[in-house]
Amino acid sequence: MTVKVGVAGYGVIGQRLADGVARQGDMTLVGVADVAPTLAVRALREKGMPYKLFAAGANGRQTLEGAGFDVSGSFEDLVGAVDIMLDSSPGGVGAVNKELYQKMGKKAVFQGGEKNSVADVFFHGYANYEKGLGADYLKLTSCNTTGLIRAVDHLDRAVGVEKTAITIIRRVADPGDYHRGLTNALEVDRAPSHQAEDLMTVMPHVAATGILVHTPVTHGHIITVLATPKKDIEVPAVIELFRRHPRVRVVSLAEGFRGNASLFRYARDLGNPRGDMYEIALWEDTVVKSGRDIMFAINIPQESVTIPETMDAIRAALEMQPDRESATGATNGFLGLGRWI
Amino acid sequence: MTVKVGVAGYGVIGQRLADGVARQGDMTLVGVADVAPTLAVRALREKGMPYKLFAAGANGRQTLEGAGFDVSGSFEDLVGAVDIMLDSSPGGVGAVNKELYQKMGKKAVFQGGEKNSVADVFFHGYANYEKGLGADYLKLTSCNTTGLIRAVDHLDRAVGVEKTAITIIRRVADPGDYHRGLTNALEVDRAPSHQAEDLMTVMPHVAATGILVHTPVTHGHIITVLATPKKDIEVPAVIELFRRHPRVRVVSLAEGFRGNASLFRYARDLGNPRGDMYEIALWEDTVVKSGRDIMFAINIPQESVTIPETMDAIRAALEMQPDRESATGATNGFLGLGRWI
Amino acid sequence: MTVKVGVAGYGVIGQRLADGVARQGDMTLVGVADVAPTLAVRALREKGMPYKLFAAGANGRQTLEGAGFDVSGSFEDLVGAVDIMLDSSPGGVGAVNKELYQKMGKKAVFQGGEKNSVADVFFHGYANYEKGLGADYLKLTSCNTTGLIRAVDHLDRAVGVEKTAITIIRRVADPGDYHRGLTNALEVDRAPSHQAEDLMTVMPHVAATGILVHTPVTHGHIITVLATPKKDIEVPAVIELFRRHPRVRVVSLAEGFRGNASLFRYARDLGNPRGDMYEIALWEDTVVKSGRDIMFAINIPQESVTIPETMDAIRAALEMQPDRESATGATNGFLGLGRWI
Amino acid sequence: MTVKVGVAGYGVIGQRLADGVARQGDMTLVGVADVAPTLAVRALREKGMPYKLFAAGANGRQTLEGAGFDVSGSFEDLVGAVDIMLDSSPGGVGAVNKELYQKMGKKAVFQGGEKNSVADVFFHGYANYEKGLGADYLKLTSCNTTGLIRAVDHLDRAVGVEKTAITIIRRVADPGDYHRGLTNALEVDRAPSHQAEDLMTVMPHVAATGILVHTPVTHGHIITVLATPKKDIEVPAVIELFRRHPRVRVVSLAEGFRGNASLFRYARDLGNPRGDMYEIALWEDTVVKSGRDIMFAINIPQESVTIPETMDAIRAALEMQPDRESATGATNGFLGLGRWI
Repeated sequence: MTVKVGVAGYGVIGQRLADGVARQGDMTLVGVADVAPTLAVRALREKGMPYKLFAAGANGRQTLEGAGFDVSGSFEDLVGAVDIMLDSSPGGVGAVNKELYQKMGKKAVFQGGEKNSVADVFFHGYANYEKGLGADYLKLTSCNTTGLIRAVDHLDRAVGVEKTAITIIRRVADPGDYHRGLTNALEVDRAPSHQAEDLMTVMPHVAATGILVHTPVTHGHIITVLATPKKDIEVPAVIELFRRHPRVRVVSLAEGFRGNASLFRYARDLGNPRGDMYEIALWEDTVVKSGRDIMFAINIPQESVTIPETMDAIRAALEMQPDRESATGATNGFLGLGRWI
Repeated sequence: MTVKVGVAGYGVIGQRLADGVARQGDMTLVGVADVAPTLAVRALREKGMPYKLFAAGANGRQTLEGAGFDVSGSFEDLVGAVDIMLDSSPGGVGAVNKELYQKMGKKAVFQGGEKNSVADVFFHGYANYEKGLGADYLKLTSCNTTGLIRAVDHLDRAVGVEKTAITIIRRVADPGDYHRGLTNALEVDRAPSHQAEDLMTVMPHVAATGILVHTPVTHGHIITVLATPKKDIEVPAVIELFRRHPRVRVVSLAEGFRGNASLFRYARDLGNPRGDMYEIALWEDTVVKSGRDIMFAINIPQESVTIPETMDAIRAALEMQPDRESATGATNGFLGLGRWI
Repeated sequence: MTVKVGVAGYGVIGQRLADGVARQGDMTLVGVADVAPTLAVRALREKGMPYKLFAAGANGRQTLEGAGFDVSGSFEDLVGAVDIMLDSSPGGVGAVNKELYQKMGKKAVFQGGEKNSVADVFFHGYANYEKGLGADYLKLTSCNTTGLIRAVDHLDRAVGVEKTAITIIRRVADPGDYHRGLTNALEVDRAPSHQAEDLMTVMPHVAATGILVHTPVTHGHIITVLATPKKDIEVPAVIELFRRHPRVRVVSLAEGFRGNASLFRYARDLGNPRGDMYEIALWEDTVVKSGRDIMFAINIPQESVTIPETMDAIRAALEMQPDRESATGATNGFLGLGRWI
Repeated sequence: MTVKVGVAGYGVIGQRLADGVARQGDMTLVGVADVAPTLAVRALREKGMPYKLFAAGANGRQTLEGAGFDVSGSFEDLVGAVDIMLDSSPGGVGAVNKELYQKMGKKAVFQGGEKNSVADVFFHGYANYEKGLGADYLKLTSCNTTGLIRAVDHLDRAVGVEKTAITIIRRVADPGDYHRGLTNALEVDRAPSHQAEDLMTVMPHVAATGILVHTPVTHGHIITVLATPKKDIEVPAVIELFRRHPRVRVVSLAEGFRGNASLFRYARDLGNPRGDMYEIALWEDTVVKSGRDIMFAINIPQESVTIPETMDAIRAALEMQPDRESATGATNGFLGLGRWI
């Protein structure tokens, strides 16, 4: 007996959500929905349609069948057949889709591109799993915030975090993106960054601020985190602490991990599907202490980092596990996370 | 009964050679050799050592075992156990290794980084398979030349190619490279490019020249080819011709293939290991005719493009198949190439 | 007695047109017009308003004065006070402005972003100066085409060019552009490129085709040109020929000119305003011969390359000089071009 | 009566030092020395040799004269003719040159590439001018540290700074650099960054730490600064404070300054030689407060930022002005800094 899950929007995130669900032994992927024969949909066909394709949008069926695709049904058919939808449609479309979900009495998990108001709970598997229990509409934190909270929440549970200041060195596009990009330029955002504000929404007891700068790269954001712990902690203890988190990889320059592109290469060489990595990485060489403050740098693999926490969200919404330990443990087990611990 | 193959140098190319051999039903991968615990070697360990690791270099064993790696033997042990070595060591090291291969009476296939003099035959699976039959030492053409010859040889066999002029828009580094790179700069090389000269070595009946410009990207070279056919041919016939080559993908802007990064993304979404693609791509939108000249643009996936032709080289050296059709057909079959034809 | 010139659109090109006019001893810059306090307009103010600023657009005056800028009059005031307008407005706006120019009986020179139909003559100072003599509306060739024609026309006048095939390695954005960009991607355009077609419009006796690929850099396009001369010519003679063109710099790798960024640096180090260069560069190391075909690579400084030919266009439209030699000579003299010859 | 200054090493920094000295009404540039006909030296010649060129290195004279350059004398001749040398030789060469300076009894100012031990004082014009008074050998802080200290020292003098944590988003190469570069990669350095440690050397009463990440861009570093002031200060007061610093430009996103490349474009449009900017920029949109902590982002124009402080260093070493106010005031006056205040 497994729960039935559908995915709306088979793009960069949607493909990975589908793969993530397919790896959960206690979930069944009913299918994925999209509006047009994108490269992702073409790749699905070339692979022999391992997932059923449903047609979304006003002309989706016509467009897809006109391009020779095998369509298993309408978006409504998909929604009707599932217990919960994972909505990774382009920003704003999720809010429209929600009306259908409500009408058909189905739960949904939205991604970071939607407004917070679309959901009852702004969710993170490790930081506030219990808030999501039984909720109808959850929104995941964005990729940067998801990875950031993994780190800050983990430190917080160990020694308490009073405040944090972050600098997000943001990758500006994903590999293969042609609709956005920067060329030889850094771009500054208005501060404080939404990630700092989102962290405070999920972890209201921590004061946070931050600045975000876009950079012309595609393989992973890097965030520097300055955290003021409540309880004094030394650098080796910080490193040891992070080594025990199943969704954090502690890496070093000496091993050859020189930056975000090393991690991307390593994940490819591991044979991970799409060369993805679910874990954030933390460079042990960057952990420093000044006064009581701790500073370190983490890498956020933007395409895949939210997948585990989205699996957690399904577990919370459908009350598959009663608490964060059992829920994240189940997700990690099915995704093979933390085997090295 | 399979032939036994070893790989020297487990880097970007060596990893892919090992994977390629492992997929050939009539070959056995005895193991791979390297000198240090690089990221590639670390990934091999994290995957559970699917390939045996042999220690090369003066201190290789000490270095690798010191870092906790399980070493199956020395480089000599590996060479002794194989029928043929694939040498993808850093440029120049192959020539040193050759002395051992000769002493132990073993054949070898070198990659493009070695000097031509290291080998008896400068080899391309489609263009001169028969020249490699029974040869002891073969050198593969470089990544650009391998892909370029695939295209020019195919056109040549159909309509004859009198001359060609190429412009190579070269990716300057592989994803994950930190030891080389360009930032906001194009770099010009002395002409004619070695690829044009290499093409003439392999296809001496074609006059070729060309210019190479380095560009700050990592996902695939793009080459524009101007070819003067002996027999007049129209644009649609050129496109149709290339559609029938098992190692060429004809793609279009309308499908969403906007450039080299689209192809990289597509290969990831296909689930190909490492997000690799063995095929070159040819954009049908770029095929144009001016007078009798034909011009078109192709994409060269530099990390993986030489793998199929290297498998062909093993077949030639060990006389596994008597001619190009059967040899390339066997390679293609094991690699799943050309299924769409 | 000088001719009076105005500039519409004080952007990347407009600023350089204004500077170019200001350097012509036989022209007077009446002023420049723009719609908003862009960075370029802010820089004009910080420099002490060396050029008069006129307000264009529906709310231009209000916007500019509201931001504290000193406005010398309306767009109509500017047009009324000049003999000829240089229109470097965003693509499409020039066609609208033309109605005003016609109503007020004023001539105009448009830039490459406008459609050809906006003008009576598609103009290049060296290739077809005489066609522009007395014309009311001229359109300059685009930056790539302007530089390309400089080279091809020069070769054509010496030995005749039968046909040409070009590959444009296009810079995708200007330094400081945030509204467009590519990140780690090459992008292919449908062939033949408009530059090849435009070349045939200006030089109808030459058959041309070409492919354009966008690259993530900002300092200059590089074009490889394959040209089939009517009369045989050797490589040293080609190099010598180009050395005598006042708007072409023959450079070499040995001097340190490794690519487009070297030229940008050199122009900065020369003390050229904005670090601009009016000349295209031709690498002598890239000039090769195959059969009778000649191949070479040139660099196109996209921000400034069209300025000299636009000055030529003013001379043609206002019949300031009767032929290309005297007109381009006058422009070159005022801009200091060709002093090294 | 002016002081006589020489420049060793006419590269990216040396050219700008020479120009800076030439603009100081109370200094005379005796000449510049280099070892080879680099592009910078070729540009000097094309400009008509505004500065005298001296030949350094074992074969400098032969190399330069062999390439047709007009050499005014040897390196010893230059050193003999000056009161003070500005040494911007490649890292490590300055230490060798120092032996000559000592032998000939000449003072010198070294750039950031040399080891601290080469100098008596690690110098910053605003932070510790008085320490440099009469010193024989001064070393300037590096480009990042120079700009960073400008900001932190200014805040410190107003409200006291207890501690600071910085993230340096470093440009990896200068425009025109081909000998170093990153392509589609961020690179992490071991923490704490030397800039944080250098800040503490110059400002020992401030606790500092920081992380540096290299990014593939060429126009300016961006540093985020978290500073804990001793005295509470509000955001508008911080902005107002920085507006009064002659070497800091307060800019905003609304004006169009979106990142480091906007500042580079603006400096070019200002007509600044080489498109350089001496001022650091501070985005008012990034100034935020969290608790008592202040956070903001600054831009460091790496090629030119140290020039004003190096002029200050000459003033200190030669005791031209008795204190920081009069010395920095003189430098600023000659360089036209702070006119907008």
